[in-house]
Amino acid sequence: MQKPNNARGTRDFGPQTMVRRNYVFDIIKKNFIKFGFENIETPAIENLSVLMGKYGEEGDQLLFKILNSGDFKKDLNARDLELSPEKIIPKISEKGLRYDLTIPFARFVAMNRNDLVFPFKRYQIQPVWRADRPQKGRYREFYQCDADLIGSNSLINELELITLFQSVFSDLKIKANLTINSRKILTGISEALGYSDNFSFFAATLDKLDKIGWEKVNTEFLEAGYSQENNNQLKNILELEGENSTKCAYLREILIHSPIGLEGIEEIEFILQNLDMNQYDNSNIIFDVKLARGLSYYTGLIYEGKPVELDFPSIVGGGRYDNLTTMFGFPDMSGVGISFGIERIIDVMEILNLFNELPKTNSQVLFTYFDELGQKQALKYLNMLRMDEIKAEIYPDIAKIKKSFDFANKRNIPFVAVIGEEEISSNKINLKNMSTGTQEMLSFEEMLELFKR
Amino acid sequence: MQKPNNARGTRDFGPQTMVRRNYVFDIIKKNFIKFGFENIETPAIENLSVLMGKYGEEGDQLLFKILNSGDFKKDLNARDLELSPEKIIPKISEKGLRYDLTIPFARFVAMNRNDLVFPFKRYQIQPVWRADRPQKGRYREFYQCDADLIGSNSLINELELITLFQSVFSDLKIKANLTINSRKILTGISEALGYSDNFSFFAATLDKLDKIGWEKVNTEFLEAGYSQENNNQLKNILELEGENSTKCAYLREILIHSPIGLEGIEEIEFILQNLDMNQYDNSNIIFDVKLARGLSYYTGLIYEGKPVELDFPSIVGGGRYDNLTTMFGFPDMSGVGISFGIERIIDVMEILNLFNELPKTNSQVLFTYFDELGQKQALKYLNMLRMDEIKAEIYPDIAKIKKSFDFANKRNIPFVAVIGEEEISSNKINLKNMSTGTQEMLSFEEMLELFKR
Repeated sequence: MQKPNNARGTRDFGPQTMVRRNYVFDIIKKNFIKFGFENIETPAIENLSVLMGKYGEEGDQLLFKILNSGDFKKDLNARDLELSPEKIIPKISEKGLRYDLTIPFARFVAMNRNDLVFPFKRYQIQPVWRADRPQKGRYREFYQCDADLIGSNSLINELELITLFQSVFSDLKIKANLTINSRKILTGISEALGYSDNFSFFAATLDKLDKIGWEKVNTEFLEAGYSQENNNQLKNILELEGENSTKCAYLREILIHSPIGLEGIEEIEFILQNLDMNQYDNSNIIFDVKLARGLSYYTGLIYEGKPVELDFPSIVGGGRYDNLTTMFGFPDMSGVGISFGIERIIDVMEILNLFNELPKTNSQVLFTYFDELGQKQALKYLNMLRMDEIKAEIYPDIAKIKKSFDFANKRNIPFVAVIGEEEISSNKINLKNMSTGTQEMLSFEEMLELFKR
Repeated sequence: MQKPNNARGTRDFGPQTMVRRNYVFDIIKKNFIKFGFENIETPAIENLSVLMGKYGEEGDQLLFKILNSGDFKKDLNARDLELSPEKIIPKISEKGLRYDLTIPFARFVAMNRNDLVFPFKRYQIQPVWRADRPQKGRYREFYQCDADLIGSNSLINELELITLFQSVFSDLKIKANLTINSRKILTGISEALGYSDNFSFFAATLDKLDKIGWEKVNTEFLEAGYSQENNNQLKNILELEGENSTKCAYLREILIHSPIGLEGIEEIEFILQNLDMNQYDNSNIIFDVKLARGLSYYTGLIYEGKPVELDFPSIVGGGRYDNLTTMFGFPDMSGVGISFGIERIIDVMEILNLFNELPKTNSQVLFTYFDELGQKQALKYLNMLRMDEIKAEIYPDIAKIKKSFDFANKRNIPFVAVIGEEEISSNKINLKNMSTGTQEMLSFEEMLELFKR
């Protein structure tokens, strides 16, 4: 006998948890479909050649790698053990676990380019795996929940994803802000202030502003050789406050000589001016030039959502990318995506007590009885109810009636139908309401009516 | 640039395929819930200590093993390479991928025994992984779809699972037979005929009868030292034909001295006599003493379902087990389960052309326009429709109108709403029915009415 355990950083989800998770998944899914996104699934196992080099050096290390089946003597020899892990691993592992849904999506699009209808809109809700050090709220296996559109560079798509964001959080009853910016504006700023020689460093450093604060960002820029004067100018721009339109006007002056920067501002303005085409209060859409997003593949509009009522990390992220499928030999496909941080959204729902109105997935009635005759009759009624799509179950054992009442209470089953001698002879059902404690003698039809309400 | 590929034995599921898969999953899920089963999920990654030794020697080899992160020099030395794979692997791999849903379920129940309400009824629909040689219809990553009840030895549970079987296949419109037998009857036969010294060999050999035929089974028994005379007697019993009740009566005579055999017959009789408590035609429930089921953990009733109209392997399997959680330190928990072979069921649906009435997950209307003014108006109508839960989308580009019509056709979107100058000034929508080709000028309310129907 062994005492079993979950693998480190993984979780089981029991029945109560799954009701909550499915509630959130279903709302997001319903919205994806309402906005015309189609479901795809890709396998958990991918060739390492597809995954390696796509998530930076750290990502390569955090990929879960699967051992080739077969014989080690064939694949490895003693001298190989002197090699670095990067050189040994390819000899014994060719496959890995999906690290996100974006790279598999890009592979899927590149492989199926001749069969897909473009612009192609897909959603995908599947687990991903990362060999991160587990800590509170960070797991090695967790779900991602993405919608992407590829094959159109129209800003209508960005507008659509913003409305999708509004629709999802309106349905979930979470108040959330969406911060937007454009990589093009950041490029313009980096040009105007002299940081353009290493844009990805510039963007990655800005991305840390929220976490580490300006002092440390300032130091990182100084250490990388940028001047305090430039940093001060940058700080001024980043601290820009006020109405979205005021910010745009101010930036327009600063970026007057940067065509790409101006393009970015025009895009932000187009978005802001067209937001009122949806039915939501859009005052929660905030243009913030500080938003950078760490991922290197974004090229246009970027956005990040956070709950209003909590100090919490972002629960939504996304943006425009122009070259995602190029790495798989399919160039010039602009796309834009949104990712709902489903695990964090579930945490937010818990903290804000938003799981009150869960859909009733539990049975409406439990049948119980005293003997085999009652059991037969109970089985009959039970299956008749199910023919009318009523969720119902039967206590499997002839036991003390109290046991089945306890069972119903623990499982939150609101009614218990008792079938005894009297009920059989009168063709009735003794139905007990478990919350009020009242009992009624009903005919089958009366009981059915009650459950159909 | 690299030409990307799926890992061997894995598949992508595109939008059309996912509509079909989700249709089948949703029907099974709905039935699980209707019968009172609760959803759980367990992680894909399990400790190898949980998985190893549970699926026989072959299973151990077919487990996908995950490489520990870290340094090989620390974990392995040159002499280790002389060892057999079974001895090297534990040094570099502690985790593996889920091989089925049953062992993780047993682990879950053992770990959560104090929090669960027994009898505990759970369903679970998740992928599993096996490093099998891929071939037609056999994949390395595929879904399983299981419902189990643990903590009650009442035969009511078997009856419930048989009715669940009827309900699922009635909803899917697949005609399917369910063959039932009892491991207890097989034990009785093995005792009566002298095969009881190695029951698992007896059951595993019988299990192959379907595939390899009697001649080879006969040979295997002879080679194992059983006599031709016994084999002949066995053959007579296995060839038993006729009504379910006739078979029971005949077996009762043969097993007259085997208490466990008689218990098995009584159980089968109880099932057969109580089937008519559900509303289905139960003539497709067939007692067949040839049914053995390979898996060693079954101890009572066993069953297997096959489509009637096709020569096809089993699409459902299951049975009673008495000691599943004992291996994780939780003894005396009898349970019974049913597993729907979802991948094969989908294949059967394809072959029998049963995917005709798929739910409409695609958008009802695509908006298109000639200029930015039309675009604005289209966005407005689009989002108004969505507020009424109508699935709708917008063509993202100002392009030739034909392009958007082509797009709608390829995506099976039944209506295209064109917003031009005239439509804006008259506050109407030009709605084209893509199957009839007719166009109508409608107000928003008229259009909404049409889609709500």
